[in-house]
Amino acid sequence: MAEAPSLFPVAEFEGRVGRLQTEMAERGIDALLLTTPADFFYVTGFLTRFWESPARPWFVVVPIAGTPIAVIPSIGAELMSRTWLRQVRTWDAPHPEDDGVSLLIDTLCGLVPETGRLGVPMGLETHLRMPLADFTRMAEGIVPREIVDGTATVQRVREIKSEAEIEKIRATCGVAGRAFARVPELAAQGRPLSEVFRAFQCAILEEGADWVSYVAGAAGADGYTDVISPAGPAPLEAGDVLMLDTGAVCDGYYCDFDRNYAVGPASAAVRTVQAALWEVTEEALAILKPGMLACDVHWILSDGLARRGVQPGAGRLGHGLGVSLTEWPSFTPLDRSELREGMVLTLEPGAWVAPGRMLVHEENLVLRAGGAELLSPRAPEQMPELPT
Amino acid sequence: MAEAPSLFPVAEFEGRVGRLQTEMAERGIDALLLTTPADFFYVTGFLTRFWESPARPWFVVVPIAGTPIAVIPSIGAELMSRTWLRQVRTWDAPHPEDDGVSLLIDTLCGLVPETGRLGVPMGLETHLRMPLADFTRMAEGIVPREIVDGTATVQRVREIKSEAEIEKIRATCGVAGRAFARVPELAAQGRPLSEVFRAFQCAILEEGADWVSYVAGAAGADGYTDVISPAGPAPLEAGDVLMLDTGAVCDGYYCDFDRNYAVGPASAAVRTVQAALWEVTEEALAILKPGMLACDVHWILSDGLARRGVQPGAGRLGHGLGVSLTEWPSFTPLDRSELREGMVLTLEPGAWVAPGRMLVHEENLVLRAGGAELLSPRAPEQMPELPT
Repeated sequence: MAEAPSLFPVAEFEGRVGRLQTEMAERGIDALLLTTPADFFYVTGFLTRFWESPARPWFVVVPIAGTPIAVIPSIGAELMSRTWLRQVRTWDAPHPEDDGVSLLIDTLCGLVPETGRLGVPMGLETHLRMPLADFTRMAEGIVPREIVDGTATVQRVREIKSEAEIEKIRATCGVAGRAFARVPELAAQGRPLSEVFRAFQCAILEEGADWVSYVAGAAGADGYTDVISPAGPAPLEAGDVLMLDTGAVCDGYYCDFDRNYAVGPASAAVRTVQAALWEVTEEALAILKPGMLACDVHWILSDGLARRGVQPGAGRLGHGLGVSLTEWPSFTPLDRSELREGMVLTLEPGAWVAPGRMLVHEENLVLRAGGAELLSPRAPEQMPELPT
Repeated sequence: MAEAPSLFPVAEFEGRVGRLQTEMAERGIDALLLTTPADFFYVTGFLTRFWESPARPWFVVVPIAGTPIAVIPSIGAELMSRTWLRQVRTWDAPHPEDDGVSLLIDTLCGLVPETGRLGVPMGLETHLRMPLADFTRMAEGIVPREIVDGTATVQRVREIKSEAEIEKIRATCGVAGRAFARVPELAAQGRPLSEVFRAFQCAILEEGADWVSYVAGAAGADGYTDVISPAGPAPLEAGDVLMLDTGAVCDGYYCDFDRNYAVGPASAAVRTVQAALWEVTEEALAILKPGMLACDVHWILSDGLARRGVQPGAGRLGHGLGVSLTEWPSFTPLDRSELREGMVLTLEPGAWVAPGRMLVHEENLVLRAGGAELLSPRAPEQMPELPT
């Protein structure tokens, strides 16, 4: 049987759960209920693409002391038996009358005292991956136990990556970097964007990704308007800028960075904006420090662009990264999250070449005590040129 | 600008919304709030992989009359402008204080009378893709309007595929079928399963998939225990059965079927179970009819296996398929959903070769008035052999 080896030693998971339990104690939370792929994988090491099926809910409960308990569909029992968890309760899902709810209620009532509080992530950038009606039924079933917001408990722990996690993300960045280096062999004037997307995904796989959870991009004369579209059949044209952005996955850890390519020589306007984006990224890499706020990074990037006479793009200019493609915080003017040592972050400045013509630049880094350490291979200062 | 063309004519979306509105009227629902990728794509045609980022919620509201209104992060405005929707309201997300909630409340209060009811899918196989605390805030913000379960409203419409949808799924099945036909060139004794998975994903892309949302599988002597694992590094061995299962995606539509391969000659035990699985699938394909219940299909498959002296696998033996990898109903003993003309379904019988050694067979079909029409190229009666 060709089984995947364990991704981390048990001590890695014990450390994660210990840190969650410290946060829980500080916030008066007696157990955490986690339901999303990222939270579930973080605590258990249970890695599968089966989340793609919306049919079944999956639960892991982290008690204030001791090890987590999984309450899962029986189809996952075998894979879960290879993780560090020793308490696994299963039911045959999907069950039209009781899809794990009574088993979950029973588990929670056994773990949380009647006067206790159950934490459930319910804040910004979270969702609850179970049917809402079943959540209501569960909440009624555990009365008088109280349900409180577990968002901060989870985020303050997950946002600080261990060295083992940083090495996973660095490896994924390396895979994507090697695939980006091959784009000049894959893309040229006349090739449809949809074919470029397919060839680029193959390159990412060939370079060692387990799978490709995200590829987006665009191509347009002197820039693009939109960075989240699937590819169309139109061929690349001379004068286009091609942007490819990827979330490759190795061992459950993502990268998230893009690269831009000029189809034939880049125009003067594109070169000006490219230079500004590259330089403000250099500046940010040089001055990022723990203790800054997320909004400070937005200011550093947008002010640096404005000082160069370039109009910054709208939206956030970077974010967290790890066991999902994007994590908090967000580099926006409004996000006052503190940057902390061990955070893995993206810098993602965008700027306008002309109305409706944008360029976006992106790098991945880990924040050390002394500043930023790049995880993605640094983008070249000049935009690489594709054959015409 | 290399834009993706519209996937369907506007009349396709008008038909979908009209059918939703008919169901809403019958159930006394004045507006539907949809938040998941599948529901959102179904109503709007807005196709993006950006859902991979959990950072932002996306809303579409279907009123009892007229066209849907999208309430979305501004990063999606450009892509949404290429859909058939004409009412699009945006905010700059993620916003730490108000991530679209007041805009959503304002939209709902303008559409739903104070005595009216808002439908939200909250039943089996659904979840709410927005922060739970924001849902609570929204529910309070639209009082005295009532929130009711919109699951059946959505499922009774989405489960009946239009001819245009059936052709999309057939095309995706064709792509996967061509990739499966190439597996004997990609996999052989001695090749690590992880490399086989990568090469198979490349083959799916090369054959025309836009992306590969799901690949799972396993390899083991005379069968496998687990069908949802990622691949490990162990090489294929003579006597193994290799199973690959895929959810490829073309134009937002999935296939979901697997294929089995013997590494060298299959054992007599494997040949016996393979024959039984192939034959019960033939039987089911011959007798499936609208009006049967989902549990009837479970019985047809499991009884057919038992009559051949083979022990059926646990869990569901098939399910719906379409704009997500799996949809309702489930072929379990408990699911009494009626099978209806136009449903696209999988038949997925599994059976035990020995304890811990399973085979799973899978096909995709559309249910016509006269019976099943295959969408996947039928699996060969004999398991194909890989080189040793």
